[in-house]
Amino acid sequence: MSAKALDYDSLNENVKKVQYAVRGELYLRASELQKEGKKIIFTNVGNPHALGQRPLTFPRQVVALCQAPFLLDDPNAGLIFPADAIARAKHYLSLTSGGLGAYSDSRGLPGIRKEVAEFIERRDGYPSDPELIFLTDGASKGVMQILNTVIRGPQDGILVPVPQYPLYSAAISLFGGSLVPYYLEETANWGLDVHNLRESVAQARSKGIIVRAMVIINPGNPTGQCLSVANLKEILRFCYQENLVLLGDEVYQQNIYQDERPFISSRKVLLDMGPPISKELQLVSFHTVSKGYWGECGQRGGYFEMTNIPPQSVDEIYKVASISLSPNVPGQIFLGLMVNPPKPGDISYEQFVRESKGILESLRKRARIMTDGFNSCRNVVCNFTEGAMYSFPQIRLPPKAIEAAKRAGKVPDVFYCLKLLEATGISTVPGSGFGQKDGVFHLRTTILPAEEDMPAIMASFKKFNDEFMEQYEDYRGYSRM
Amino acid sequence: MSAKALDYDSLNENVKKVQYAVRGELYLRASELQKEGKKIIFTNVGNPHALGQRPLTFPRQVVALCQAPFLLDDPNAGLIFPADAIARAKHYLSLTSGGLGAYSDSRGLPGIRKEVAEFIERRDGYPSDPELIFLTDGASKGVMQILNTVIRGPQDGILVPVPQYPLYSAAISLFGGSLVPYYLEETANWGLDVHNLRESVAQARSKGIIVRAMVIINPGNPTGQCLSVANLKEILRFCYQENLVLLGDEVYQQNIYQDERPFISSRKVLLDMGPPISKELQLVSFHTVSKGYWGECGQRGGYFEMTNIPPQSVDEIYKVASISLSPNVPGQIFLGLMVNPPKPGDISYEQFVRESKGILESLRKRARIMTDGFNSCRNVVCNFTEGAMYSFPQIRLPPKAIEAAKRAGKVPDVFYCLKLLEATGISTVPGSGFGQKDGVFHLRTTILPAEEDMPAIMASFKKFNDEFMEQYEDYRGYSRM
Repeated sequence: MSAKALDYDSLNENVKKVQYAVRGELYLRASELQKEGKKIIFTNVGNPHALGQRPLTFPRQVVALCQAPFLLDDPNAGLIFPADAIARAKHYLSLTSGGLGAYSDSRGLPGIRKEVAEFIERRDGYPSDPELIFLTDGASKGVMQILNTVIRGPQDGILVPVPQYPLYSAAISLFGGSLVPYYLEETANWGLDVHNLRESVAQARSKGIIVRAMVIINPGNPTGQCLSVANLKEILRFCYQENLVLLGDEVYQQNIYQDERPFISSRKVLLDMGPPISKELQLVSFHTVSKGYWGECGQRGGYFEMTNIPPQSVDEIYKVASISLSPNVPGQIFLGLMVNPPKPGDISYEQFVRESKGILESLRKRARIMTDGFNSCRNVVCNFTEGAMYSFPQIRLPPKAIEAAKRAGKVPDVFYCLKLLEATGISTVPGSGFGQKDGVFHLRTTILPAEEDMPAIMASFKKFNDEFMEQYEDYRGYSRM
Repeated sequence: MSAKALDYDSLNENVKKVQYAVRGELYLRASELQKEGKKIIFTNVGNPHALGQRPLTFPRQVVALCQAPFLLDDPNAGLIFPADAIARAKHYLSLTSGGLGAYSDSRGLPGIRKEVAEFIERRDGYPSDPELIFLTDGASKGVMQILNTVIRGPQDGILVPVPQYPLYSAAISLFGGSLVPYYLEETANWGLDVHNLRESVAQARSKGIIVRAMVIINPGNPTGQCLSVANLKEILRFCYQENLVLLGDEVYQQNIYQDERPFISSRKVLLDMGPPISKELQLVSFHTVSKGYWGECGQRGGYFEMTNIPPQSVDEIYKVASISLSPNVPGQIFLGLMVNPPKPGDISYEQFVRESKGILESLRKRARIMTDGFNSCRNVVCNFTEGAMYSFPQIRLPPKAIEAAKRAGKVPDVFYCLKLLEATGISTVPGSGFGQKDGVFHLRTTILPAEEDMPAIMASFKKFNDEFMEQYEDYRGYSRM
């Protein structure tokens, strides 16, 4: 009898090709060790609440009230909920038809898309059209939908930074397209050089690839860099010249840990450039409630905004979104709260500011502790985390370690990260999961462990690393490259 | 300059091919009319809360508390939440690592998957393995993931009932496979005849299609029929002989409006049949919190359970689920509550039973009012809604109406449904959106409008229909087929 449709050998090959290292071999091994009772520090994924970050009080109050609308008539509700949370819950319920239990429009609730448009206008200084904003179950789902719309087959290429967040490589595999890598320059603080871009496109075209879109992640994941206005302009001009859709992954726009390069959206830079580019370049920008000082990953709320996308294409994207009916409605309300937080004078304003500032200031300190910690280790060098939630140190593995990895049948950085996990419980993601230049090795860790735990974690890392290096370094001495 | 990647002409052709009538032309027109101030009765989608169904109190209390865990320490919380809701919220929070704001495992929280497995065991009498249960953002997302795993290209065929819920046709188009239709017999109360199945498969194979899987929807959507054990056995035997994966869409398992054929799961029938079939047939079953007496559509909670799927394939499905990190956590908790509702003796038990019974009994009455209402109309015949949430009357359009539709450039049933919408505000879905035999016309409406509104809605429908028939019927008289 021939293979059954769900036997491994007969599965869709694109499914098998997918790689997603953030929850790959290291994560699976960490989960096993945890089951066996080992204490694991999960720094494999940017999941702040899992590492102890507390949710912001006001948005949780509002969503709790939306879930329990019968409380709005309960005279005792005022004892445990502030009046502005009650008012806001009523506001959001008035935007639904049937509360949180009803499917919304497949693009999300019109009233919340309007709040998103107002947020974008305040941020960028240009009006935004709610009809071009679609709410999604987290940013990843939006990215996947746009890639699925763009990719027609293996000849279609998508420019993706290396190192990249593996959502991009995974989704491109799943939809059967081709990933066209462009390298970020570690020695230039993970900057983006347009000459590299041109080279990547030329090389892809020589292989018959039609390059259709370019992904930027700003602030960078896993690399943490923040793009300058000048750099963004170059990128936009490049996309315009090369006729590429720009996909702007801007989910870390609140996570900025330096003052030289504040976040600036691709859309603002585009519109500042004026016609013809501002009227023609196709841009899709992504945002989420999972990052920032929110970190509401489990709620799955996000949006994408389309600029210069023809109405007929917007209709097609709407149609496909309709198949899964609607993004989850509580997640939509979190998004509404994120783009429209308490204002000065509101009862909850002071608390909201105190909580959100506290988180952001602590992340800034942790970014510094972590970078400094890595740089104090033997054979480890690390750029400062300017933004996002990650540290991406380079681990200069001695030749003997690389040989040992080969003997163990492991990629060298996987070998290192597994040893780190077994020795310390720190669960990271090997750089090979994000892409890196040949012969260069990294790991990615989030900067999310609690601030008070950070010194101990970095000490534990240093102890492991320095012993590892001691063990594998040639006693002739291993010179830094 | 050549077309840009997001210009309509250069989009992925599979995206353009997708049709999803539930939110198609009729829905868009209804939304327009609503904007213009017309009162619309949205019966296009099974969205009970949008039509006034109230949420069950206990689950909403639990999820509200999970969203606001700081309330668990508030001495006033006991004034507005019953103790069992507080205890249950603590239970679910203990299953998370980081509350609702943290990503869970991509398959869902292990503790909730365990509760689902226990529910399945109680329901079917056979143990279920939590490792083979994946939680999803609603059942649709699960169906899409499995179809994406099975479909390798246009040569791969999926047997789908006609009429069908258009999720299936839409997803098969999106993933570039081939839909192989098998017809349900309207004159046999929408029964499924295995001879038809064989014919459909033979015909598909003669065109070079490799038939890989079969979809059943039980209870039926849009047709409302409940499959008998004998019929399910035939289907399972057929799938076994033909080497097909069976996809069992069982989202309406709580929605049963007659006593002759209670719901029985495909899995129970399969396991009752014993080896070899019970050990070999590949089955994936789907369930949701959106239907039943829950109707929590906006929360997007669902699961699928895999039977006889090889571990390596399960791993692949897990890997792809990982790309979008995790299903939304509040939706997972609703699912936990659905499979593990209050028990006799619990403080909230009486209220829970009263509320859920009330909804189900009212739906049963509405199914009857609607069927009888349709059958009282000129040229309309309608099978009784045995289960699910829909009525699917056949509308026997007179030849003149068909000609008028052609002149208007509309499919005849779309023409009829648009006229119905404009005249009455009732927003239905034309039968052509679900598939029907040539020359036969239907519409689908949910049975969800409030019981007290039902007589007026049916009277309004009857008035429109009978006038429509009067207008278009040949004065020679139009004989019923």
